[in-house]
Amino acid sequence: MNDSTLREVIEDLNSAAVGREMLALASELFPICRSITGQGVRKTLALLQEVIPVEVHEVASGTEVFDWTVPNEWNIRGAYIRDPSGRKIVDFSSSNLHVVSYSSPVQGVFSLEELRPHLHSIPEHPDWIPYRTSYYQETWGFCLSHRQLSELKEGDYEVSIDASLEAGYLTYGELVLPGETPAEVLLSCHICHPSLCNDNLSGLVVSAFLARALGKISRKFTYRFIFIPGTIGSITWLAKNEETVHRIHAGLVLANLGDAGDFTYKRSRQNNSSIDTAVVQALVDSGLEYEIEDFVPFGYDERQYCSPGFNLPVGSLTRTPYGRYPQYHTSADDLDFIRSDALGGSLSLYLDVLAILEQDRTYLNLNPKCEPQLGRRGLYGSLGGRSDGRERELATLWVLNYSDGHHSLLRIAERSGLKFSAIAAAAQRLLGADLLEEVS
Amino acid sequence: MNDSTLREVIEDLNSAAVGREMLALASELFPICRSITGQGVRKTLALLQEVIPVEVHEVASGTEVFDWTVPNEWNIRGAYIRDPSGRKIVDFSSSNLHVVSYSSPVQGVFSLEELRPHLHSIPEHPDWIPYRTSYYQETWGFCLSHRQLSELKEGDYEVSIDASLEAGYLTYGELVLPGETPAEVLLSCHICHPSLCNDNLSGLVVSAFLARALGKISRKFTYRFIFIPGTIGSITWLAKNEETVHRIHAGLVLANLGDAGDFTYKRSRQNNSSIDTAVVQALVDSGLEYEIEDFVPFGYDERQYCSPGFNLPVGSLTRTPYGRYPQYHTSADDLDFIRSDALGGSLSLYLDVLAILEQDRTYLNLNPKCEPQLGRRGLYGSLGGRSDGRERELATLWVLNYSDGHHSLLRIAERSGLKFSAIAAAAQRLLGADLLEEVS
Amino acid sequence: MNDSTLREVIEDLNSAAVGREMLALASELFPICRSITGQGVRKTLALLQEVIPVEVHEVASGTEVFDWTVPNEWNIRGAYIRDPSGRKIVDFSSSNLHVVSYSSPVQGVFSLEELRPHLHSIPEHPDWIPYRTSYYQETWGFCLSHRQLSELKEGDYEVSIDASLEAGYLTYGELVLPGETPAEVLLSCHICHPSLCNDNLSGLVVSAFLARALGKISRKFTYRFIFIPGTIGSITWLAKNEETVHRIHAGLVLANLGDAGDFTYKRSRQNNSSIDTAVVQALVDSGLEYEIEDFVPFGYDERQYCSPGFNLPVGSLTRTPYGRYPQYHTSADDLDFIRSDALGGSLSLYLDVLAILEQDRTYLNLNPKCEPQLGRRGLYGSLGGRSDGRERELATLWVLNYSDGHHSLLRIAERSGLKFSAIAAAAQRLLGADLLEEVS
Repeated sequence: MNDSTLREVIEDLNSAAVGREMLALASELFPICRSITGQGVRKTLALLQEVIPVEVHEVASGTEVFDWTVPNEWNIRGAYIRDPSGRKIVDFSSSNLHVVSYSSPVQGVFSLEELRPHLHSIPEHPDWIPYRTSYYQETWGFCLSHRQLSELKEGDYEVSIDASLEAGYLTYGELVLPGETPAEVLLSCHICHPSLCNDNLSGLVVSAFLARALGKISRKFTYRFIFIPGTIGSITWLAKNEETVHRIHAGLVLANLGDAGDFTYKRSRQNNSSIDTAVVQALVDSGLEYEIEDFVPFGYDERQYCSPGFNLPVGSLTRTPYGRYPQYHTSADDLDFIRSDALGGSLSLYLDVLAILEQDRTYLNLNPKCEPQLGRRGLYGSLGGRSDGRERELATLWVLNYSDGHHSLLRIAERSGLKFSAIAAAAQRLLGADLLEEVS
Repeated sequence: MNDSTLREVIEDLNSAAVGREMLALASELFPICRSITGQGVRKTLALLQEVIPVEVHEVASGTEVFDWTVPNEWNIRGAYIRDPSGRKIVDFSSSNLHVVSYSSPVQGVFSLEELRPHLHSIPEHPDWIPYRTSYYQETWGFCLSHRQLSELKEGDYEVSIDASLEAGYLTYGELVLPGETPAEVLLSCHICHPSLCNDNLSGLVVSAFLARALGKISRKFTYRFIFIPGTIGSITWLAKNEETVHRIHAGLVLANLGDAGDFTYKRSRQNNSSIDTAVVQALVDSGLEYEIEDFVPFGYDERQYCSPGFNLPVGSLTRTPYGRYPQYHTSADDLDFIRSDALGGSLSLYLDVLAILEQDRTYLNLNPKCEPQLGRRGLYGSLGGRSDGRERELATLWVLNYSDGHHSLLRIAERSGLKFSAIAAAAQRLLGADLLEEVS
Repeated sequence: MNDSTLREVIEDLNSAAVGREMLALASELFPICRSITGQGVRKTLALLQEVIPVEVHEVASGTEVFDWTVPNEWNIRGAYIRDPSGRKIVDFSSSNLHVVSYSSPVQGVFSLEELRPHLHSIPEHPDWIPYRTSYYQETWGFCLSHRQLSELKEGDYEVSIDASLEAGYLTYGELVLPGETPAEVLLSCHICHPSLCNDNLSGLVVSAFLARALGKISRKFTYRFIFIPGTIGSITWLAKNEETVHRIHAGLVLANLGDAGDFTYKRSRQNNSSIDTAVVQALVDSGLEYEIEDFVPFGYDERQYCSPGFNLPVGSLTRTPYGRYPQYHTSADDLDFIRSDALGGSLSLYLDVLAILEQDRTYLNLNPKCEPQLGRRGLYGSLGGRSDGRERELATLWVLNYSDGHHSLLRIAERSGLKFSAIAAAAQRLLGADLLEEVS
């Protein structure tokens, strides 16, 4: 840990260059066939360990986690369909989306009629392969383009899925960066999707680069990054950490961070917790277009963090939310769909949010009766009578007037319409002039 | 009482057919000359008793009711004006609106100049007869079309009002349908208007058919229907029931329910009581156009129920509110002005409101930490990865997430944007799966 | 003190005639060279004493007032610049704006280059002289039109400022009009600007005429008018009155009240104190266009009254706010810029605000169960059945229904959408009928 601050990291950030690094990491991770368990998750975490010191956890199949049970581990070596002429028309080796995730092993010959219920396509996008899973109901299936499906002729098809579904482990990654206080900021992303980029290699690489940046600075909060399979992963993690999640002061679920769309923030169930206010402030300050949405009990792992028995202050900050872009959960969510500038911009916004959390404080004005004389302290312009107020001076006045022990800097920024960074800088100047005192 | 529920009644409702029945009842009630007391009220209640077992109450003239005194009973046998040529130009037997309600008896000859202050018309609608009353200041008068009034020539007019204003009774009807709990839903309509339809034979027939429908089912709440003269009736009823009105959990004043206009809901003085939320939800769920208005201390009997000493949770759900349609309080508010489909639709909406009140509950999610595994309980689609959420599943997730003991189903419906019926159905499924418990 | 009320004063007000008187007083005050201290302030207060019995206070230079020190007294007798040809090109005697307020004495010859940093102009308005001050950093300077500045040629300029900056006094005026209660209404205006009209001779004359009007009536509140130099004046006054400012129930800072613009109200930091509600109500009732703005910690002396250690209920009611009209702090803010009708209208609105404060009360309906029978008390029309509600009767019903001890007349006016005066008059009628009782 060194002494530079997050604000300095932000000032030094070359978001275009970092965006290209992030896209490069996504490209390395892309070919791996991930699911909620299995070798693909282990390979993914091993690659991440080249960037950040993430620790790998393994939880045995059959472990009870609240109402759920850790499932058997699924691994797949290959799969294909041969048409009546013996030609391989669908081959797992050309795209891992071709096989329904968690398909049970199968080896046999099927008529087209028998095969058809096991084939999935997207009629509206005839060239794309859909992404399908069946974790908790044993079945098997293939996904293929609708164009290909439509051309299938009557006859006997040879089908092979060389997969195993056996007792093993659920694998996830965790990285803790201790801070001055045990209060934690949770950053959670799901790593269970195969060759799909926006959902969710984008969340994975933003998380990794965020961890890398935070590793280099002195931190107020303790940061906990978790790389988990969706749903069963957060449930497992919550079950294992039930006693300590009360330390979570703020959290975000990272996903869909590489597309060209505007940011969307989905509030935590608490609605106005400090993560909610901090994200809104960062978005306002960014000058970008954005959407704010209230919590709904569906989406990614925030649905577990925000279940009523936990109700943690965890929101989700994405670009285009899941299900609202046609490429979602199809082969079109590929390396061409995500952009290095979008990844860099997402990292930059996350850093802004965390800088607000790190810098937010509540102060007491030590000279609360009338304004202090700022002029003699060099904190105010000396030649009066001008009609233009300067933002620096306004920020100073806002901090003085509202530092009554009840308004944090974040609330003052919100109330004033000024940027959080301007308010935080004014507080620094006033602290330097012994005009403020921190309220614990 | 049998075991069918209000929801089943609603599903079986043939609103067109019932609307025609309602219009037929209104037609029977139309010719009767009602006022705040007298034989007209008794005849009206007698006719209602053919539909529902309403009980008739008589309160003696002179009874003190809060700041008021039950007035003498008014009855009228006939009335006319003969012009100088001896021709009957105004005759009570052709329309009971012709006589100002509560006119004192009169018999004599008057010059046109003497007569004129006793004649009322509507210049803007020269063919319509206005409706006028003078309950508490003894006078007499006639109402006639402005066209007729304008043609009156100088000369002596013979005037006769064969009425009596003597000690008697104030008559009202009451019907109580006991439920599982003593908590009451009050349904109040005024029955003091003579041959006027929207105001308020419409309220009277919707009330009667509502009582008929509720009589056939098992009820959570106790329902109390009152058929009372306006103002003095509700004051009298409140005076007689002062000790028990605290049982009123929700209430509505029924009026103007037969015209072709959209629904308007006037909130109770409490503003956000459960009747207010239930009506708003029923209107939203209906998909119809509607208006919501805040409480104002004028209108119908809600002004008494919502007087500050009672402040009961009683709103008023109408179609076009009083005074906002030109036919209001004129002879044009006749059997042609109200429509069977409007009456049927009003009944249907009232049933929806009451179904929400009946079904609203607050539950506790018994598996509050993370989501329960819905799939293995058959409560969730099994093939993941699809981008379309189904309403059934969303409703299930909403009920689970917000059943924290603080959100009733009504509040969950409001928060989710889903229909109350979908939320209530989800709660039933979750109860069936032992995932919820009712909070008392 | 006599027995007429503020409402009667308002009814008798000839705002056009009074506006002309106010403009005449402003014309007398215009030529005086005021600053935050000195003879100009004393002359100003002496002239005011011809209108109202304002008391003059003197506070010695060097007095500590919170974080500030009362500065030396500044007086100026004359000042000029002669060009290289010996011609007086800038002369204090033609406009007191020519000299930067609080300039130190200077006598000497300067090259144009040496002189230039001491010269101030407004390039966007080349014919106007700006207004500049330098109270707390000793310097000297001249203000002149940009046209004149642009024409200056190289050469030696003779500069003279015959001023003194020596131990003396800060002078301010105060007038207290005692009322029935010790609770105070504070009316504060700054008197430190030289020949500038809207800012702030307008505030000064509205204050004076308000005091004159209030002097003639019986008052509920005690009124305190203060005529002070900006910033240091309110700080000094607060320091001297620290123990008693808790009596301030409401307050306003008066400025910019003579221009042709609409009214703008800047709320107190408390945001919804009774002065805030009263001003908003008066503006609504006026039927005029207006703007309402939230408190911000810059502006006039409200920034001191609303500093967090005081947080007094003091707002600022102006026409066009400071800095939002081009003439602001320039020689164009002269006697032609302010208008007698605007001054009269401002006085009238301030009287309306104070009448609301004076008349606001909270009552208890003594007949809270159902409506009282208004008809027999002559408080309600007797011939029922009409569709038009009359405002008088509506006001009566509003006051009765909401006089539950929790709603003041002001809140009832706000809730009803009726004018405060109509609500207050209804309350008077109901008091006369023994239907209300004041809640202390």
